[in-house]
Amino acid sequence: MASKPLLVTSRFSVEEVERRTPDGQIRTRAIVRHPGAVTIIPMVDDQHVCLIRNFRVSVNQTLIELPAGTLEPPEPPEQAAYRELHEETGYKAGAMRELHGFYLSPGVLDERMHLFVATDLEPIGAAREPGEEIENLVVSWEEALELIVARKIQDAKTIVGLLLYDRLRSQNA
Amino acid sequence: MASKPLLVTSRFSVEEVERRTPDGQIRTRAIVRHPGAVTIIPMVDDQHVCLIRNFRVSVNQTLIELPAGTLEPPEPPEQAAYRELHEETGYKAGAMRELHGFYLSPGVLDERMHLFVATDLEPIGAAREPGEEIENLVVSWEEALELIVARKIQDAKTIVGLLLYDRLRSQNA
Repeated sequence: MASKPLLVTSRFSVEEVERRTPDGQIRTRAIVRHPGAVTIIPMVDDQHVCLIRNFRVSVNQTLIELPAGTLEPPEPPEQAAYRELHEETGYKAGAMRELHGFYLSPGVLDERMHLFVATDLEPIGAAREPGEEIENLVVSWEEALELIVARKIQDAKTIVGLLLYDRLRSQNA
Repeated sequence: MASKPLLVTSRFSVEEVERRTPDGQIRTRAIVRHPGAVTIIPMVDDQHVCLIRNFRVSVNQTLIELPAGTLEPPEPPEQAAYRELHEETGYKAGAMRELHGFYLSPGVLDERMHLFVATDLEPIGAAREPGEEIENLVVSWEEALELIVARKIQDAKTIVGLLLYDRLRSQNA
């Protein structure tokens, strides 16, 4: 697949990719290239999770989310998960376990997200980046699930993380 | 928020947005603007769902997904859901119900996805777009959930749709 750069920004780039499809035609499409990301389920204890309220410029509203952040290659995903959890929530994790990996919008964006669960948390103070507008929202596990059903959680990675971990926990229970 | 266009493509555009953050600074960031999308859970019968295998140029692999597609404004989301279900899977739905709405990657992308469940399906033949490489994959509901846990489904909207509908169904059971 031939490609040519269309745009470079500080957080992603855009490429035009050329490809021969099975019907024999050459087709081009623009794709957003992203370094990938991590998201973390911070279990404060066995029955409580630390979500965040996060103001998102792209949609001009505050979303309830799991903490997350962009990979800084060559940093491994697990290290990024420890780093982002600390920066965004102020918790240092004693253990971090990868649960899954998924693509967010593969029609236009190559971003892959690694999902972790963090346990043995110790509060050591957040280190939010300048301009980040984030606050912690610790809720019970059942409250977190109810926020999804009530459509108050509207962020895909957060819904994936909470519902998937709920299923994995109940399968192992 | 002031903004200036950086790039326009056939499927999305990129804008630089300027914003005063609570620390008093003016910050800019690039945001991918997208018209929004729909995804559909096609229930072939009460215990079977029609997934698709979809070759994705952005990640250079075939993903197992729910059918989905981009809104064509001013088309309402429900109409897009009927249209995309037919185009991608060949099923005409007798009923379409909206379950949820969510953002896919709000750090960089404003795409909002509307989630529908489609029932009373009638096979009338697909109308895939030129260059689309899609085939149907009808599985039992339990198989679909197992594909998630086995990490064979790696697409966020698909994981959200299946796990959320599973929860809503069991709450109403």
